[in-house]
Amino acid sequence: MGSGAGEMRWWGWGEDAHAGGLPDGAEAWLTVRLGTALGAACGPPVLASVRLPDAQLTGRDRTVLTKIAGSAAVREDPGSRVRHAAGRSYPDLLRLRAASAIPAPDAVVGVTSHEQVLAVLRACAAQGIAVVPFGGGTSVVGGVEPLRGAHHAVIALDLRPLAGLERIDARSRLAWVLPGLLGPELERALAGHGHTLGHFPQSFEYSTVGGWVATRSAGQASTGYGRIDDLVAGVRLAAPEGEIDLPALPASAAGPDLRELVVGSEGVLGVITQAVLRIRPAPAERRYEAWMLPSFADGADALRALIQRDLRPEIARVSDEAETEMSLALAGLRGARGAAVGGYLAARGVRGGAFVILGFEGEADDVRERRRKVTALMRRHGAASLGAGPGRAWEAGRFHAPYLRDELLGRGVMVDTLETAVRWNDVLTLHAAVGRALAAHAPFVACHISHIYPDGASLYFTYVAPQDTSDPLGQWQTAKHAASTAIVEHGATITHHHAIGTDHAPYLEAQDGALGLAALRAVKERLDPAGIMNPGKLFT
Amino acid sequence: MGSGAGEMRWWGWGEDAHAGGLPDGAEAWLTVRLGTALGAACGPPVLASVRLPDAQLTGRDRTVLTKIAGSAAVREDPGSRVRHAAGRSYPDLLRLRAASAIPAPDAVVGVTSHEQVLAVLRACAAQGIAVVPFGGGTSVVGGVEPLRGAHHAVIALDLRPLAGLERIDARSRLAWVLPGLLGPELERALAGHGHTLGHFPQSFEYSTVGGWVATRSAGQASTGYGRIDDLVAGVRLAAPEGEIDLPALPASAAGPDLRELVVGSEGVLGVITQAVLRIRPAPAERRYEAWMLPSFADGADALRALIQRDLRPEIARVSDEAETEMSLALAGLRGARGAAVGGYLAARGVRGGAFVILGFEGEADDVRERRRKVTALMRRHGAASLGAGPGRAWEAGRFHAPYLRDELLGRGVMVDTLETAVRWNDVLTLHAAVGRALAAHAPFVACHISHIYPDGASLYFTYVAPQDTSDPLGQWQTAKHAASTAIVEHGATITHHHAIGTDHAPYLEAQDGALGLAALRAVKERLDPAGIMNPGKLFT
Repeated sequence: MGSGAGEMRWWGWGEDAHAGGLPDGAEAWLTVRLGTALGAACGPPVLASVRLPDAQLTGRDRTVLTKIAGSAAVREDPGSRVRHAAGRSYPDLLRLRAASAIPAPDAVVGVTSHEQVLAVLRACAAQGIAVVPFGGGTSVVGGVEPLRGAHHAVIALDLRPLAGLERIDARSRLAWVLPGLLGPELERALAGHGHTLGHFPQSFEYSTVGGWVATRSAGQASTGYGRIDDLVAGVRLAAPEGEIDLPALPASAAGPDLRELVVGSEGVLGVITQAVLRIRPAPAERRYEAWMLPSFADGADALRALIQRDLRPEIARVSDEAETEMSLALAGLRGARGAAVGGYLAARGVRGGAFVILGFEGEADDVRERRRKVTALMRRHGAASLGAGPGRAWEAGRFHAPYLRDELLGRGVMVDTLETAVRWNDVLTLHAAVGRALAAHAPFVACHISHIYPDGASLYFTYVAPQDTSDPLGQWQTAKHAASTAIVEHGATITHHHAIGTDHAPYLEAQDGALGLAALRAVKERLDPAGIMNPGKLFT
Repeated sequence: MGSGAGEMRWWGWGEDAHAGGLPDGAEAWLTVRLGTALGAACGPPVLASVRLPDAQLTGRDRTVLTKIAGSAAVREDPGSRVRHAAGRSYPDLLRLRAASAIPAPDAVVGVTSHEQVLAVLRACAAQGIAVVPFGGGTSVVGGVEPLRGAHHAVIALDLRPLAGLERIDARSRLAWVLPGLLGPELERALAGHGHTLGHFPQSFEYSTVGGWVATRSAGQASTGYGRIDDLVAGVRLAAPEGEIDLPALPASAAGPDLRELVVGSEGVLGVITQAVLRIRPAPAERRYEAWMLPSFADGADALRALIQRDLRPEIARVSDEAETEMSLALAGLRGARGAAVGGYLAARGVRGGAFVILGFEGEADDVRERRRKVTALMRRHGAASLGAGPGRAWEAGRFHAPYLRDELLGRGVMVDTLETAVRWNDVLTLHAAVGRALAAHAPFVACHISHIYPDGASLYFTYVAPQDTSDPLGQWQTAKHAASTAIVEHGATITHHHAIGTDHAPYLEAQDGALGLAALRAVKERLDPAGIMNPGKLFT
């Protein structure tokens, strides 16, 4: 379930205790793939050398905020500010590593209740202070960038103290949850009642429930458990102009679904202060297993056949040929377990094709029966079983990739990921188009399907290149723009589960249209007329 | 699949050819239950005796509309106006039967393209003409009432000519559909490609795709196929200020879901001119069967157990004891088939309890396997199988109830239905509360669960009383208000699948909150600043 709950390294992902070096063989493989040797390992930046802009809260600002939240909850020290200065996008990491003149919020304000949030937002609207709602700070799209818009100051609203499992209705399978709870905290609390939410994004260990809801998150097991938008039965929003408290309902025909306006609102309409989530009994059995298919096209076909027959593994992923190669090359990841995978595959003579992970969770007989049907279908599609070993290895490393990104960044390698979703009919075309777009800027590009639906699938790309040290941000922007343009031109969504933030904002109009965005802006104007909520994100 | 496609009787449901008299035994049973004899049969009102208000289009209005839609498409004759004067709610039926001074649109304007719709809306905004989008006219909540708001005239925008199945993407299981298509027309067109939508509301034969999407409709098989909000992958809206064209996507994290703002918008934001729907292969097998459980509470428990184990019949309904009694009493419905049910049940000594209908649709082996599991679970819950006979009878009569309402209305009986949904934990409490509220105004009240979800269920109430001929509308309003108040007080939704229209509008704020409604109104102001779109409905 992951450890989590410790404080993230201020300059990168996770905690030192969980980070590891490059897996065996990775450096040699990358040297070949990138056509150049990796740089010398470069130590992390030093907090003492960080320069922050002067904090801009006025005395009056400070008095008002302190009166609401208490003096200990209003922090202006450099440590607090720098820890709430950025998410964990590639540009965020570049900015933090540069360690000079990091844009940061002027203060971090912790809150412990819905009423406090309302009061803080009202006060900030009156004082002209921008507010960035801040949960785990794991955004990879610039969603917590401390932008102040037209305002004289910006605070990070720290929602971690507003955390807890309020209550469970086991008969209705619902849990009332406060937004600051981290993934592992939530799952531990639910496990105490014999339940699970089943929501495991890669950020699981460090991201919060409120962040999941605000960003329309999908977890690794969402093919089975559903995306967070499927799991939210009710939700409460605190906005500068008041609150919207949507009760938990199984279904309704009462007009437009306001729940779907709050879910995915990324802090620009207000702050999510409670979510009512659809939970399930904790599964008695978890079984992850791996398969190999001759090609990515075969893999996509097999996964489409699975979901369209309503055979729905909780986890279903297929890597393209390049990612399969990378997985084998990096199989040393996580030490002994990873090495076992490499050995396992090598012993079976597997050197290429498309690597598939299927995960089943549930009652033992249910898992057995679904596995039996899925196995038959996979064999009909020409898949070779690799058994549970590589599946377990994948599970063990499922939250680890962001550490690797930090490690490579320290060796002069740009590595980033991006994702989209599209109709089945366009999956292969889009895969090729985005691959081409990225290949013009990165020597290595790989992809997997991470989530499947009856009408389509998500595509998750990883691209790797030697860092252009003269302009690392420009290098990234060029690659990102090329991929985003290809995505938009193919009628796919600019994001399947990373959200919009600042990075995807230029591409939102392609999906929602000018009038669609105008409609959303009209809502914002009504809820946040002063425009203090998370400026510069989403459609703002 | 129903016949449909004929023109509805202007004063009531469906077509004469499909109407029947009261089933055998119904009159005797009702006489006992209502404590009074039924009135003498009263013939339908006569079209020639209808008085309509003078049509209010100006010469300039007429010229502008004719230029866009063609002169034949702009109809001001009494027949056209009266056929677009009302939906089929109980108040609508009272108004039509009164046949004197029926409020009616000033004209009916037929449209054949998205561009024409845009042009008509722009013209109406400029001229100050209110627009009521009109599909099948089957609203049971006053959704097509020809209200003009502050405008000098009101037109019904006839969307029936804007109909057709544009294309299918079989690999992605998607169909692009124009809004004016009736249920049977859609299913016939899809069947030509081997597919189905699986959406069968009771209004199926006379309602349109656009109406389903605009009202967030649920079909009788939605427990299996999903509600229309689950089935809409993409949607196009024509508004006075322009269009919102949301592409079909399997999933997205790109901010608030605009699709969910358009679905359920009931014509107050604009006109739905296209929907991309998630279709499925037509089922090889359909199997409907009936069960009896000792009590409604047992039935609710059994259905909850089914859905929470992900055993999901396409149709799952359980009647309370009163509805079970009514079903047996009215088993003569639809002649010989119905009589067979009565005989079947009598032969098994079944006289009470809670009647359950389960329907399975799919591949033969899939249906067989699910039935096996469901059968085991139902038996564990103490259910007695009644076999396929009553199931087939239910299927044969599934679209017939509205005819019966007309028949009873002609005999001096008020009969109406209303529905809600709530968490499982509150299902029995709500059932009792709404039952009590209605019982104060109607001697006979019955209910069934019509749709089940992991977190809750819908409740569908039928209430019957001798008509108060001195004030039939006031009588209905009193009963409706009592039930609606009980629903709202229990935190349930004011409507699970009938939508809001005019009848439920006073109760919407209880669900969405004042600020929630303000947000929706802000959207409307942006898309329809002149306020011409369907005045008086939903939140307007």
